[in-house]
Amino acid sequence: MSEQFEMDEDEAFGVAPTLIDDVVEATSAGDRGAIEQLLDPIHPADIAHLIEQLPPRDRTALIEVWKGVDGEILSELDEGLREEIIDTMAPAELAEVVRDLESDDVVDLVEYLDEDQQEAVLDVLDGAERLAVEKALSYPEESAGRHMQVEVVRAPDHWTVGEAIDFLRSDVELPDQFYHVILIDARLKPVGYVTLGRILSARRGQKLTDLAEESFRSFHVEDPAADVAHAFNHYHLISAPVVDDDDRLVGIITIDDAMTLLDEEHEEDILRLAGVGEGSLSDTVLETTKQRLPWLAVNLVTAILASMVIGLFETTISGLVALAVLMPIVASMGGNAGTQSLTVAVRAIATRDLTGSNVWRVIRRELAVGLFNGLVFAVLMGTVGWVWFGMPMLGVVLAVAMVINLVVAGLAGTVVPVILEKLGVDPALASGAFVTTVTDVVGFFAFLGLAAVMIL
Amino acid sequence: MSEQFEMDEDEAFGVAPTLIDDVVEATSAGDRGAIEQLLDPIHPADIAHLIEQLPPRDRTALIEVWKGVDGEILSELDEGLREEIIDTMAPAELAEVVRDLESDDVVDLVEYLDEDQQEAVLDVLDGAERLAVEKALSYPEESAGRHMQVEVVRAPDHWTVGEAIDFLRSDVELPDQFYHVILIDARLKPVGYVTLGRILSARRGQKLTDLAEESFRSFHVEDPAADVAHAFNHYHLISAPVVDDDDRLVGIITIDDAMTLLDEEHEEDILRLAGVGEGSLSDTVLETTKQRLPWLAVNLVTAILASMVIGLFETTISGLVALAVLMPIVASMGGNAGTQSLTVAVRAIATRDLTGSNVWRVIRRELAVGLFNGLVFAVLMGTVGWVWFGMPMLGVVLAVAMVINLVVAGLAGTVVPVILEKLGVDPALASGAFVTTVTDVVGFFAFLGLAAVMIL
Repeated sequence: MSEQFEMDEDEAFGVAPTLIDDVVEATSAGDRGAIEQLLDPIHPADIAHLIEQLPPRDRTALIEVWKGVDGEILSELDEGLREEIIDTMAPAELAEVVRDLESDDVVDLVEYLDEDQQEAVLDVLDGAERLAVEKALSYPEESAGRHMQVEVVRAPDHWTVGEAIDFLRSDVELPDQFYHVILIDARLKPVGYVTLGRILSARRGQKLTDLAEESFRSFHVEDPAADVAHAFNHYHLISAPVVDDDDRLVGIITIDDAMTLLDEEHEEDILRLAGVGEGSLSDTVLETTKQRLPWLAVNLVTAILASMVIGLFETTISGLVALAVLMPIVASMGGNAGTQSLTVAVRAIATRDLTGSNVWRVIRRELAVGLFNGLVFAVLMGTVGWVWFGMPMLGVVLAVAMVINLVVAGLAGTVVPVILEKLGVDPALASGAFVTTVTDVVGFFAFLGLAAVMIL
Repeated sequence: MSEQFEMDEDEAFGVAPTLIDDVVEATSAGDRGAIEQLLDPIHPADIAHLIEQLPPRDRTALIEVWKGVDGEILSELDEGLREEIIDTMAPAELAEVVRDLESDDVVDLVEYLDEDQQEAVLDVLDGAERLAVEKALSYPEESAGRHMQVEVVRAPDHWTVGEAIDFLRSDVELPDQFYHVILIDARLKPVGYVTLGRILSARRGQKLTDLAEESFRSFHVEDPAADVAHAFNHYHLISAPVVDDDDRLVGIITIDDAMTLLDEEHEEDILRLAGVGEGSLSDTVLETTKQRLPWLAVNLVTAILASMVIGLFETTISGLVALAVLMPIVASMGGNAGTQSLTVAVRAIATRDLTGSNVWRVIRRELAVGLFNGLVFAVLMGTVGWVWFGMPMLGVVLAVAMVINLVVAGLAGTVVPVILEKLGVDPALASGAFVTTVTDVVGFFAFLGLAAVMIL
């Protein structure tokens, strides 16, 4: 039976289901050598992926028997799981684990740990690296400063290609990965960058400034990381220097970090829109229950509000039970149309496509779309209501309520996220509750109210 | 009033609202020189952004007066708008526009044009480039072959650093941006790559193969672009060679392309989950109405199904109108819980976190979460139902129906997307309709059915 749900092997990147089974088997046999043999050729990202996919009991057992989780694997793990594993590690083990990481990876690892754990990790770093990590932690959460790498290859802006090449070929310690040489002026302000490709192919006598890329753009340490990620995507940047308050170069953000940030940003948006704040598949039942409860509680309030509106019309419904049968249709169509509008608006706010310059045009468009779709479904549902219950007037009421609710849905779906954004609330998080409240209340009120006036 | 909705300037990247106003003014004055002066210092991505934000009339006027839309700007525009603008261009203008683009950008530009337009663009390309574009168009839509760049810097795998440097400094034509030298064996198969940083800092006599990166990974021309994008994010790749059926190097995908793909992939997921297939803010009312109609139609069928279930219990409702007041609560809570589960599942399928290895564990977890949250809200709503209408039995019915519906929601929210994925249907597109149908039908049936049996 399990076969039936087995997905294509390539879906799981490098982690074949048979590998997982083999690792679990070796773990239950307590065979550390076998585990090492299995996991040694596997990419750290895939090992993290494998650990995430194990049931909690197997996961704990594997970590205990194997004792092979290193800094790279930790960096790749889901946050919740990462903290859990760090919790189980002795300070000496932790020291071993963070030793090989670059400073930005250490920051990534420790930023959400509680103070005791953070202290334990910092204690094992050498002076310079500890300083770099502490400096990064002093910047706001989710800022450029938290995500930058302090290892930067820089060159004075008056250098020639030859000087740069000689410098790079000297004994200087270079970062693992770098793609640009950042040009700085006498006050350490970054003024441009040159790709290594250009340095390699240019004449030695050429000035670096003549080879600088047009796409150059720098960020401030306190710029929100999400803005940085969007700017990388928008301007097709490969790396960008980060400056402090005095405009001095203090670090660099590279596109691979920006890609990770953009992906996290996406994950947050999509989960928040669905009312799942955070959370991953490796969370336990209890954690998941707690993550989902708040949104369901908000929805309960919404639903009770809608019920109270229905309660106003109890006598109307007693007079014509067909109203109870048909009323969810109006509310449901409004809810769906509202979700369409709000998702487009939330996404457009995130990508900076919805701005002060076009918000009125977008609102007008949504109203028009609501009106047109409202008319289409009014005709459809009006006919259904009439034929089903043999009452032409019921059809008319249904049709008019449908138009009203779809227009309101278009309006609320755009205005609510825009106002939330203005108020500094993440529109992805809160828009859904407001918009469905509006469409439920308006839907029931319009339909039952019109029925009370026009039919009974 | 407009001021009230004006967002922070930095939200709109480099496009200040005042710039937009100035451009519109210069356009109405027919002042081409002024437009050029305004737009000359602006990044093509920002110009595209500005064009997207204009109302359709101003947009058309700007393009006509300015005559400055070039290939780079076209590449940055929303697809729909891009086609619209290309439609208005004479073949000679088009020729001018695509002349400076690299082959992968031309592919991007023409792949969704209709045949006449495609032919017009291809006709202006020179032989070699035309061949490259036609070759790329022969690969499936949304494949690695469509998105790769054919300009690759390659070196035989027996070369030394010195040989590579001499080659790069010779008169060979190099791509605008490149970060790696791809090593190929005698049969043109890519076997590794070396970053330019390592080449620059190593001794001339060192063998390139000794400097090759561990992260090396290649793709097949027909691999889905989405898989490539996820692999870049998962393995932190910077570039990756693309091979044909004979394992020969035919192109390269770089991380900036992968980032664009990942972003498009995400946009698709988030919009599909909300029942908005495609679409952007620059679409017209008619286009938007058409995009949203199909999902609303599907929802109408769902809603009518739910109404038919209610219709089965007309006499029950006549007997106790309180049931009509409370029944939307059960359906609404189920719908929300189902959306939570399905969003987590859809996202996890997209990121390859939900696989054959853990699907049963995830289903068990969702059932447990549904049960626990169901119990919490059963107690709450049971009390509300009892107090509101003074009928303890009504509270009990509401409570039991709530538990049933939240458990069903958790189950459907996971199983539906997994099955759709197995069937080759995009779970982001279709899961919502199925899951809400299930929670509506089960919600109304459980609540009204229990009421019919236990109360009346």
